[in-house]
Formats: sequence, structure tokens, C-alpha cells
Amino acid sequence: MTPTVVGLVAGTLTSVAAIPQVVRTLRTGQVRDISIWQPLLLTVGVALWMVYGMLISDLPLMLANITPLVCNSLLVFLKFKYRDCRDIP
Amino acid sequence: MTPTVVGLVAGTLTSVAAIPQVVRTLRTGQVRDISIWQPLLLTVGVALWMVYGMLISDLPLMLANITPLVCNSLLVFLKFKYRDCRDIP
Repeated sequence: MTPTVVGLVAGTLTSVAAIPQVVRTLRTGQVRDISIWQPLLLTVGVALWMVYGMLISDLPLMLANITPLVCNSLLVFLKFKYRDCRDIP
Repeated sequence: MTPTVVGLVAGTLTSVAAIPQVVRTLRTGQVRDISIWQPLLLTVGVALWMVYGMLISDLPLMLANITPLVCNSLLVFLKFKYRDCRDIP
């Protein structure tokens, strides 16, 4: 496998990783056991990975971070939408 | 900011992102609202990002994925440990 293929497979897996969590959260409307910090830090982090990918002209890095950026932003929104006032952070 | 600095900041954020979730899960012992697929796909995905980083000799990619690999493997284990038999995937 060439490095680009490994990068694309890695990017595909980390790209789609947050989708099942978004689906589950939308389906159950429950966010009790989810820490707000994971999707929040990932949103900022993957946005910077995209910038890094642009700066070093690395296609897998640029493409792989679009879906997690959308999914993690959505999870931050859903955590606030469905949060319980008694909830711990 | 140089590309390496952007990569290191991105790597730091995505590296530490799963730590609060691990802490919360260990503290509450509850995994009801967590999809097993996110930590599972991230475990395999970040392992491959490390391989990609090695193949293209990219230091930020190699270092940034050690902590998420440990944290997400741990979350997969905790999801199984604390799972409810009536739990949905």
C-alpha cells in the first residue's frame, strides 16, 4: 500500500467515526453520558488539521476532515440542545 | 505560524479531545448514550494515521495519534465493561 492509500483509508475511518454518534444522538435525544469537550476540541482540532493539510498541500488531510468537522459541530449543538440543567460537564 | 506549528496545535487538540470523555466515563460508569462505533472506528483510524505519518516521515502525525489511540481503545473497553444488556448499539 502506498502512503496515500494508507492516508485515505485512515482519513475515511476517522471521517466517518462521528456519524454513528450523531445518528444515535438524533435518534435517542439523550446526551447524558457524552462530554461536551470531546466534540468541542475535535471541532477546533479538525479545522486546524484542514488548515495544516492546505499549508502542506496534503489532499488526504484536507478531505478527511470535512465530515468530522460537520459531525462534531453538530454534536456540540445537540449536547446543548438536549442538555439537562442538572447535567455535569 | 508555520505549517508545523499549525499541525502541532491541531495534533494537540485532537490528541487530548478524548481525555475528558474517558474521565467522565470512568467517573460515572455510564455509557448509555455513547455509540461503540465512534471509539472503535477512531481506534483503527488513528492507528492508520500513525502509519501514514511514519510512511511520509511526518512528526506531528506520528505524535498526535498516540493519546487518541490509548483513549479510544480504553473507551471501547469501557463501553463493553459498562454496557447494559438492553443497550442499543
